[in-house]
Amino acid sequence: MQSPTIPHHHHFTTTPTIRLTKPTSRFTVRMALRPDAPSLAVVGVTGAVGQEFLSVLSDRSFPYKSIKLLASKRSAGKKYTFEDNEYVVEELNKDSFDDVDIALFSAGGSISKEYGPIAVEKGCVVVDNSSAFRMVEGVPLVIPEVNPEAMTGVRIGKGALVANPNCSTIICLMAATPLHKRAKVLRMVVSTYQAASGAGAAAMEELELQTREVLEGKRPTCNIFKQQYAFNLFSHNAPVLPNGYNEEEMKLVKETRKIWNDKDVKVTATCIRVPVMRAHAESVNLQFASPLDENEAREILKKAPGVVVIDDRASNHFPTPLEVSNKDDVAVGRIRRDESQDGNHGLDIFVCGDQIRKGAALNAVQIAEMLL
Amino acid sequence: MQSPTIPHHHHFTTTPTIRLTKPTSRFTVRMALRPDAPSLAVVGVTGAVGQEFLSVLSDRSFPYKSIKLLASKRSAGKKYTFEDNEYVVEELNKDSFDDVDIALFSAGGSISKEYGPIAVEKGCVVVDNSSAFRMVEGVPLVIPEVNPEAMTGVRIGKGALVANPNCSTIICLMAATPLHKRAKVLRMVVSTYQAASGAGAAAMEELELQTREVLEGKRPTCNIFKQQYAFNLFSHNAPVLPNGYNEEEMKLVKETRKIWNDKDVKVTATCIRVPVMRAHAESVNLQFASPLDENEAREILKKAPGVVVIDDRASNHFPTPLEVSNKDDVAVGRIRRDESQDGNHGLDIFVCGDQIRKGAALNAVQIAEMLL
Repeated sequence: MQSPTIPHHHHFTTTPTIRLTKPTSRFTVRMALRPDAPSLAVVGVTGAVGQEFLSVLSDRSFPYKSIKLLASKRSAGKKYTFEDNEYVVEELNKDSFDDVDIALFSAGGSISKEYGPIAVEKGCVVVDNSSAFRMVEGVPLVIPEVNPEAMTGVRIGKGALVANPNCSTIICLMAATPLHKRAKVLRMVVSTYQAASGAGAAAMEELELQTREVLEGKRPTCNIFKQQYAFNLFSHNAPVLPNGYNEEEMKLVKETRKIWNDKDVKVTATCIRVPVMRAHAESVNLQFASPLDENEAREILKKAPGVVVIDDRASNHFPTPLEVSNKDDVAVGRIRRDESQDGNHGLDIFVCGDQIRKGAALNAVQIAEMLL
Repeated sequence: MQSPTIPHHHHFTTTPTIRLTKPTSRFTVRMALRPDAPSLAVVGVTGAVGQEFLSVLSDRSFPYKSIKLLASKRSAGKKYTFEDNEYVVEELNKDSFDDVDIALFSAGGSISKEYGPIAVEKGCVVVDNSSAFRMVEGVPLVIPEVNPEAMTGVRIGKGALVANPNCSTIICLMAATPLHKRAKVLRMVVSTYQAASGAGAAAMEELELQTREVLEGKRPTCNIFKQQYAFNLFSHNAPVLPNGYNEEEMKLVKETRKIWNDKDVKVTATCIRVPVMRAHAESVNLQFASPLDENEAREILKKAPGVVVIDDRASNHFPTPLEVSNKDDVAVGRIRRDESQDGNHGLDIFVCGDQIRKGAALNAVQIAEMLL
């Protein structure tokens, strides 16, 4: 399977020097096409996350009876080879979901709002990567390693919406939750270092193009973002709300409360876009109800599913976006007692995760796997 | 004056769209060469900060009787034109300071440790940009806008060491101090986004080189840093201490206490290197003893010397490293009530400052100006 849109440069996506869950080879012949398996649809298949849905389904040998690739009219007719079969992208319409059991949506909030309920009506389970339904009461907002209980009652054959959390939330909570379960997080101060991929494949292309332009002494092309991104960083482009937070930051605040089912947890976030391709980093300061020392925290995180600890102080080796790019696991390091808090009631940690993979497509596919 | 070593690419250092203190033109003929003025020396003149010392001296029409350009043996003999006169770089030695009133040092801690005391012995006031003497009792650690009182008793003709704080500390405290003076900061959680320039001109060159290599599909050259920097970020390269903080982070903790003369202020920091050329950004979460609402904070910051407020929520215009590059002022924005704290006892702010200029050379020259 080839992605026509996403830059897949080697050094944008390099270098495992430690164990990180490695996607299985894409060249193995799959046996995932099975008559007894669910029928799938991928909505927004030509986008960065849409493409990654296909990669992750294949990497994880997700079983399916059929798979339908859906996109806008503009992309209809494009061909993809997926697991040795050729598929033609179909234009999304209200009949698209007639015979679909599970639909993975990543085509933006307005498409989800329009077509999600149509799919549900037809008995389809929609796993939606947009923010459209995340905060709607009754819609499960799920990170499978964190709150699998939220999926209770959702099953194939019964139309339902399930929301995939925002990428920053997923990556943060993959690391924070195991500590929260042990010592209860009272307050979390998060500063993000977010990759281009969160704004889609076109933003990744613009970062690459701008970087070339700047190195050639040209004025950078600003289509996706209104300012220079190459060799720069800026406050996240999401709209700013009356309280001064931007929408990206408020997702971290609100989604954490919903996922942890804890309306009292205090979260503040500052979300910043940095010139990195496809993995987010987050500096997370934690305040706990119960004492938790850094060694115990490190042991808890080493055992946490989907988390890898990279915390080698002697060689100054800690998580980086590049090292987690194209990897499933969220990496955590810089685990240390927060000296600005009393006793062992505070920790600082630094987390990195692939925005497209665990921050979006992988998490959605893992949700779908819970239906099998 | 030409810098032989620092990339001065237009789009690395672009774009004033708002008022920021603009250096006066470098093409004006200076009258700063005056027989009644102090004699100067610049130690480490070929480095990024050394070059900026010259720019800032010139931009500010710093008066001097003579100026001596000092560097290592390797750079001795290099010629620079400074304010219409040609100077030859001399090799630093123990007699270099025989007739020098004020010496600006930026040649690394070991050079400062060796030659700083020699200069002081000869009656020279040393303004040292290294970390060598910052935490030494009795050595003033000075940000002129913040703690000018620390300079009491320091004068030309009487040998003395004065330490320039670390770049991250200066940039953070330029914004935090006016708020601290009004409402007393109890605790500060800082996450940094640090530019290449903090590791010197060679690191800036390596970032540019690596970026070219990555775009050409080549393996990036890693001489200054042990890992890929282009399109990546990583925990600051300073050594990690037994408490898990790196030295850069502990500078923020300890220097803040010394500069504010407040041994109780609680600070925690996570210092991250991002692929930006010459200006640092910092996400700063503040907890205050007294309530301070965001509107009052904004007004205080608008009036603070050396600070410019860029906080336009409607157009999503906030400080960026690029916008403050080559500028004197530290820019602050994203000023908002921290919703994770009670009442008006918390604020989040986002600060950007030119690392080479206010983070190093400008601050040192401002200290020297206090001697005039």
